[in-house]
Amino acid sequence: MDIAFDRNSTVPVYRQIAEQIKTHISAGRLPAESRLPTVRRLATELGVTRLTVQNAYAELQSAGWTESTVGRGTFVAAHTRPQIMRHRPEVNLTPDGYINDLLQVGNAVGLRSLASASPDPRLFPVEEFATHISTDPAEAASVWQYAASEGDPALRVQIAEYLADRGLRVDPDEVLVVAGVTQGLSLVTQILCRPGDTVLVEDPTYLGMLHTLRSYGVQPLGVPLDACGALDLDQVEQLVIQTRPRFLYLVPTYQNPGGTSLPVEQRHALLALAEKHGFLIVEDDIYARLTYAEEIPPALHALDSGDNVVHVGSFSKLLSPGLRLGYVIAPSSLHSRLASLRRAIDLCSPPLLQRALAGYLRSDGPKRHLRRVLPLYRQRRDTLLNALDRTMPDGATWTEPRGGLCVWLTLPPRGNFADLHHACVQKGFAFSPGEVFMAQPQAGRHLRICFGEPTPETINAAVDTLAALVRERLDTGIYPIPAGWRPLV
Amino acid sequence: MDIAFDRNSTVPVYRQIAEQIKTHISAGRLPAESRLPTVRRLATELGVTRLTVQNAYAELQSAGWTESTVGRGTFVAAHTRPQIMRHRPEVNLTPDGYINDLLQVGNAVGLRSLASASPDPRLFPVEEFATHISTDPAEAASVWQYAASEGDPALRVQIAEYLADRGLRVDPDEVLVVAGVTQGLSLVTQILCRPGDTVLVEDPTYLGMLHTLRSYGVQPLGVPLDACGALDLDQVEQLVIQTRPRFLYLVPTYQNPGGTSLPVEQRHALLALAEKHGFLIVEDDIYARLTYAEEIPPALHALDSGDNVVHVGSFSKLLSPGLRLGYVIAPSSLHSRLASLRRAIDLCSPPLLQRALAGYLRSDGPKRHLRRVLPLYRQRRDTLLNALDRTMPDGATWTEPRGGLCVWLTLPPRGNFADLHHACVQKGFAFSPGEVFMAQPQAGRHLRICFGEPTPETINAAVDTLAALVRERLDTGIYPIPAGWRPLV
Repeated sequence: MDIAFDRNSTVPVYRQIAEQIKTHISAGRLPAESRLPTVRRLATELGVTRLTVQNAYAELQSAGWTESTVGRGTFVAAHTRPQIMRHRPEVNLTPDGYINDLLQVGNAVGLRSLASASPDPRLFPVEEFATHISTDPAEAASVWQYAASEGDPALRVQIAEYLADRGLRVDPDEVLVVAGVTQGLSLVTQILCRPGDTVLVEDPTYLGMLHTLRSYGVQPLGVPLDACGALDLDQVEQLVIQTRPRFLYLVPTYQNPGGTSLPVEQRHALLALAEKHGFLIVEDDIYARLTYAEEIPPALHALDSGDNVVHVGSFSKLLSPGLRLGYVIAPSSLHSRLASLRRAIDLCSPPLLQRALAGYLRSDGPKRHLRRVLPLYRQRRDTLLNALDRTMPDGATWTEPRGGLCVWLTLPPRGNFADLHHACVQKGFAFSPGEVFMAQPQAGRHLRICFGEPTPETINAAVDTLAALVRERLDTGIYPIPAGWRPLV
Repeated sequence: MDIAFDRNSTVPVYRQIAEQIKTHISAGRLPAESRLPTVRRLATELGVTRLTVQNAYAELQSAGWTESTVGRGTFVAAHTRPQIMRHRPEVNLTPDGYINDLLQVGNAVGLRSLASASPDPRLFPVEEFATHISTDPAEAASVWQYAASEGDPALRVQIAEYLADRGLRVDPDEVLVVAGVTQGLSLVTQILCRPGDTVLVEDPTYLGMLHTLRSYGVQPLGVPLDACGALDLDQVEQLVIQTRPRFLYLVPTYQNPGGTSLPVEQRHALLALAEKHGFLIVEDDIYARLTYAEEIPPALHALDSGDNVVHVGSFSKLLSPGLRLGYVIAPSSLHSRLASLRRAIDLCSPPLLQRALAGYLRSDGPKRHLRRVLPLYRQRRDTLLNALDRTMPDGATWTEPRGGLCVWLTLPPRGNFADLHHACVQKGFAFSPGEVFMAQPQAGRHLRICFGEPTPETINAAVDTLAALVRERLDTGIYPIPAGWRPLV
């Protein structure tokens, strides 16, 4: 079998092998039901360990590309089921389907992704963090046992201190550790909402929140954000009066998908509105530490003089989404209901990772990490903005983020871009189609472009490709979908 | 300050220090708002590192015993809030409140616990498992990034193979990785039930399931289990016809809290009933590997010829609850709805731990681990059964488990045991009060005794104490609650 791999790549060798076997299968070079070489033979042939080939085969099997029978060997599946980025342009994208793609996009070798608002995992301080992972059997009783639902005591203390930078003055008791912002938002939604309720969101907003709300039968109502990150506050007030939403969900600092921030004067005005009408604001602060400006806008929670703000954050963007650790700071009556619901949902987060994160925070790891990564992300942002400036046609507009990991691109009104996302994937680049971020979807005119993971070279190549595809679609009618198109991966 | 600690204890030194400071505070030796020594001073005085004292102070602060102000020091809180096992006998216990206690009972030094159905964390193969935790920066892109909601591909392959022993023949694609059985049951409940629905459960049953069902407005209806683990199947059929339950939840193998198993002929009869009436069975197989018998009863899923069984399991009892990793095997339409809901709840489990577990499973770790721990658990079970036999008064009955971690004790009808749980805690031993496991609670007559964690010596001392307290309460009327009682911890 013709398989090349690069030992110096950041993509593990087993995954490179798996991806190339997928390509062989897709191209028909390995027909359905044909037999793959034995693990031993392929390992010898490629000069890798058997474990590497085993891992590659495991991945193929798990994703349905192959089937394996003990004693008989591994065979190409009768019907392969490639699973990533497979949306045909005529199919409506849903947040759920698209989240499913995003969670796996990093595994699709051959696809260069600007789709996921993730930090670059190659920058994660693996070795430093690993020194905080307990391998001491004497600690087993505390790190391998159940932990309190509210979180590991040591981590709650560290998070309370960590939030002082954001202007929050909270006791460790007020910290609820959660499995990432998504779990925090899901708990808040479940406690505060009943099916049929409405929640106000920025439009566009975090697609995970749209999925969470809809999963619980809650209707997201979008309030348009402008390109500078300002909300129409009159519309907020009107909707609050008309629809009595259960809360207003915002990513006020380095917003997702726009990268913009709510102006400070609007923060004060919004808090005054919340106080006046008695509505709750759920503030998602997940991107705030990733700043390329002198000053980070203050957290709404820090400016609030009442009990009107629930503050949610996580270490997914600062460090790594794989930690699955975040926090919720909520008024105390809500805090205890959230903790009780967490006991009904999954009991607690893994204490091993909680304790390791506590040690890393105590050692001031985040400051060191940010000193190292922020210049790189700033450079990637600048590369992206310059590339858009250089290539985009008149009439296209985009946000200019001072922090975070995303830019929101709006294409000119004079064109048909219904197949643009699909065409980009065909060319080997993934962006995120805008409609999945919108409470009231408008197909085809928006893209989210994320600059956290790609190198500057990839960003330039991706935007060049994107711009060429955009120009082809200017002033056209319905763009024909190529017959016989099949998913890339 | 008078603080003694034992470096050879399995309780970490910082926790021993924290617990003794709590005792000083409880006893009034450290009054409210008094100042604790600085970290540096106490560390020098005790001959420990500053980190140890910092950890002890963090734990005190997090639990509300102390308050700390940067630059001013650490002070005893104005109002201390001891949080564990504080139920007064006159207060109704709830599953939620009791789960909260159980999650933290291991942290209460001074209390010897037979309350939690957990394996002994001192037996967890920390060092062996740690060799499978990736600290390779080249793997960062896959273990520190988001993972697919369905689970890490390598882990799904390993779980599919691991289930072959239980007679399940499943593809990796059918495996949904979840954050422990509790998350699996919560997802299933949310997908299948609406508020007001009913679900049949064994009575007594897993208290977490009672909390989960009630959190989602679902009514658990109990079907009595007898002391040998047999269900009244006529009653099951009658309730199915009368109440159209959304499903029947069972721990058929080494049940919690009883330790009994559903007889094999009843398994077949129950599957026939499910097929006849079209109801779903949710099988919780969490204890099945912990067997002290020659043969483990077959899984219901393995005996089912239709699509009537959802199989849920985890590594919490086999290895460690701290992993927070389990699995759900469900019919395919349900599988995809569960995965979609997981994307709305917390996206995925930490890929670092998933990949490590996959490596551990691939290396046949569970077989080695069970060879080592099963003789110890068997010895603890035998010690417990002998102690009950030796000490309990006539009329007390208990289950005789062939696997799992618990015994269910039923006290004679001629006595008043309303304060028994409270009296045990006062004597320094924690058992679990029976009512929290019951869909239709009967106060005072039942206890769950868990033998996974305590040594044989502790088991004997605990049962001696328990038996003395039981005998004091035989043939009495209402037992008076001591005035001025305060929680032990």
